[in-house]
Amino acid sequence: MDFETIAAISTAMGEGAIGIVRLSGDEAIKIADSVYRSPKGKSLADVKSHTIHYGHMVDPATNQMVDEVMVSVMKGPNTFTREDTVEINCHGGLVSVNKVLQLVLNQGAKLAEPGEFTKRAFLNGRIDLSQAEAVMDLIRAKTDKAMNMALGQVEGKLSKLIRALRQEILETLAQVEVNIDYPEYDDVEEMTHRLFKERCEHVKAEIERLLQTSHQGKILREGISTVIIGRPNVGKSSLLNSLVQENKAIVTDIPGTTRDVIEEYVNVRGVPLRLVDTAGIRETEDIVERIGVERSREVLKKADLILLVLNNADDFTEEDVRLFDAVKGMDVIVLINKTDLPRKLDIDKVKDRAGNYPIIMTSLKEEVGVDQLEEAISSLFFEGNLQMGDATYVSNSRHIALLNQAKKAIEDALEGIEAGVPIDLVQIDLTKSWEMLGEIIGDSVHESLIDQLFSQFCLGK
Amino acid sequence: MDFETIAAISTAMGEGAIGIVRLSGDEAIKIADSVYRSPKGKSLADVKSHTIHYGHMVDPATNQMVDEVMVSVMKGPNTFTREDTVEINCHGGLVSVNKVLQLVLNQGAKLAEPGEFTKRAFLNGRIDLSQAEAVMDLIRAKTDKAMNMALGQVEGKLSKLIRALRQEILETLAQVEVNIDYPEYDDVEEMTHRLFKERCEHVKAEIERLLQTSHQGKILREGISTVIIGRPNVGKSSLLNSLVQENKAIVTDIPGTTRDVIEEYVNVRGVPLRLVDTAGIRETEDIVERIGVERSREVLKKADLILLVLNNADDFTEEDVRLFDAVKGMDVIVLINKTDLPRKLDIDKVKDRAGNYPIIMTSLKEEVGVDQLEEAISSLFFEGNLQMGDATYVSNSRHIALLNQAKKAIEDALEGIEAGVPIDLVQIDLTKSWEMLGEIIGDSVHESLIDQLFSQFCLGK
Repeated sequence: MDFETIAAISTAMGEGAIGIVRLSGDEAIKIADSVYRSPKGKSLADVKSHTIHYGHMVDPATNQMVDEVMVSVMKGPNTFTREDTVEINCHGGLVSVNKVLQLVLNQGAKLAEPGEFTKRAFLNGRIDLSQAEAVMDLIRAKTDKAMNMALGQVEGKLSKLIRALRQEILETLAQVEVNIDYPEYDDVEEMTHRLFKERCEHVKAEIERLLQTSHQGKILREGISTVIIGRPNVGKSSLLNSLVQENKAIVTDIPGTTRDVIEEYVNVRGVPLRLVDTAGIRETEDIVERIGVERSREVLKKADLILLVLNNADDFTEEDVRLFDAVKGMDVIVLINKTDLPRKLDIDKVKDRAGNYPIIMTSLKEEVGVDQLEEAISSLFFEGNLQMGDATYVSNSRHIALLNQAKKAIEDALEGIEAGVPIDLVQIDLTKSWEMLGEIIGDSVHESLIDQLFSQFCLGK
Repeated sequence: MDFETIAAISTAMGEGAIGIVRLSGDEAIKIADSVYRSPKGKSLADVKSHTIHYGHMVDPATNQMVDEVMVSVMKGPNTFTREDTVEINCHGGLVSVNKVLQLVLNQGAKLAEPGEFTKRAFLNGRIDLSQAEAVMDLIRAKTDKAMNMALGQVEGKLSKLIRALRQEILETLAQVEVNIDYPEYDDVEEMTHRLFKERCEHVKAEIERLLQTSHQGKILREGISTVIIGRPNVGKSSLLNSLVQENKAIVTDIPGTTRDVIEEYVNVRGVPLRLVDTAGIRETEDIVERIGVERSREVLKKADLILLVLNNADDFTEEDVRLFDAVKGMDVIVLINKTDLPRKLDIDKVKDRAGNYPIIMTSLKEEVGVDQLEEAISSLFFEGNLQMGDATYVSNSRHIALLNQAKKAIEDALEGIEAGVPIDLVQIDLTKSWEMLGEIIGDSVHESLIDQLFSQFCLGK
């Protein structure tokens, strides 16, 4: 395909040793060459593909030097986008990288939209849609396991499975077609039905097997959204600190919001715990007071896991009861903290309220009980054993929804055949299933969907 | 020289499209090759220098794939460090970049210390010390002008000047030596004195010329540390927002501190204004109350510029007077804000207190007066015209101190010669001057100084 040449900063924003400005498109080499000065007078137009060149970026308008750089020239189709690609490695300061970007934009490159490089890789047929989506998951992965899952998908594990299922459906449809066209054999109808049923049930079983991975897959991809609640001074900050200190925390500023909305990820035995509203916990101790406020209800509603902290050295109060009421029906782990102090808490009352919730005794001050908490989290979401191995996981909500629709269509087809519906009508359902699976890998998806998917990418990818 | 092979992440931390793990040293290619798998089975040991190769990072211990990468192989001496260098471009997520780094560390690379790549470039003789120091300035530059200044220094502008001065001193010393050794001519003593004086005065003038740039140079490099003060509700937040919105702000988290200590840089006509304690202004309006508190005094003491905001629609109060007292003797610009409201402020009283301070009338609400403020800041620090041109700036405190010492030594030599001190004693001062200038570019500096200088670098550079 033929697109405009695009450019963007492809490294994370911030001060680093190296920053990269990436160009992709027919004019990439020409544009880079127009601002590149080699000490030996060489031109990027003459260099071999996949080679690196030292030189300077110079503004042709003023002849002023902008930065000292290493330029990588890669000619299509052996590139990420399949187009000619130039990567300019410059000094990684905020100003220098932006100046180099500005320079190539002035020479006619278009500022790339978020995800536009990956979108081109997709549109140019180098990767399918599910692989493109996994590229972003790979970058956003917060744990090794999440990254492995995404990497498998980038490498086409899921695509391969989906393609195999579609092929099976296509062959079934073709076979049925043949049988319908040659009705001279007596048992053709019975044979067609039997074959149809067998194949459909196999495809359905495969889809179900994939869907079974979706719960764990989604958690690995998105993290367990976790909220810590409890009355003032029960030890919420200590819990937060214990989790953050024992496991390396990754703090992410969410772009476009104020500095207050900060997510902290901790890696609990390979499971990414997304700690929500940690700023609130850190700054004040007033989360309890905000329960009842609309915003806190919103936060609670979106949580996958509640860590409810009680004080071992205090009574079980009305406020504690209200907290239990607020999280009814959710995944809750109860922590009875301050076991280093004499017990005043009525454990039976707690057990009564807690029902099936796991109860963990902790003394966060003395670093007791955090292991048990992590164990409880791990069993709650992964029944204790998360074995990735070479399994293919589904993790993306879009894929999960499409798999459910494909499954539904297959079930409709199976019901139809049981009910004696004519085979050519049942074929429609099967075709629909084939189409739904196709949307996962981006066969015949709508352009607006593609635009929307890639717009969620980060800049420069 | 022969060093261990080092590795580090060379891109900024954070989620980006591309992250780079860089290796440098004799074993760089061997180590990278041990974890690299090419789809065509090629080995990095066999590839040409300055070429790029697609493949995967694979953990040889488990045979598990870690990431999909592009590997750049650059053989010394044509590299940043002059050593063999490998850059592994991987997916720019926090997890993937760290995993790739871990992989090469497991294979025997040593984790690079901050600045160690640049230190090697220096120790291996590719750049001198002042150039190495400028590399970091380049990355940290907050405005175009600051970046240009640093870039000039990286390119060796300052070094060239310093070398020329040292050469002149050396030639003078040699000439004097010759004259002393051949005292058979009558006028040798007079000639020697005259020549000595001429040369010394020239070198001194050159050093003074350089030192004259140091005030502006330091400001460009470090920014003008600016504090906004004023009573509650006079418009401090509005002023902050106006400055930040009109000029793109760069927010820097200072590593090793809590999230509270945040510096915001705004680019005012090429001058980096470093806004200090903005969190305090944003969160509360209580800076005034904290005046008198030790910490606020500390903040004020370090400021280069005070923006003192008064309320046009209110009386000139005792509190305002106390603010004037607190910043006595500093660079202050007075803002009379809320000119959209009826005047209640006694302007004469303000003028009386303000003395020589510029007074700017603003209505920040109606976006009136910010231009005049920027003009005032620019004239205060750059007398209105900051002409960079091709001038060589001194900006680094270490260089400034050494230039001052060199100047002092030259002055001592000149005084000695006036006082009729024997020429071979005066030579000692001149030699000292030569040594001080040498320290700027790193000739015969102490190892511990070098270690200390590079330790201030960012990781991966």
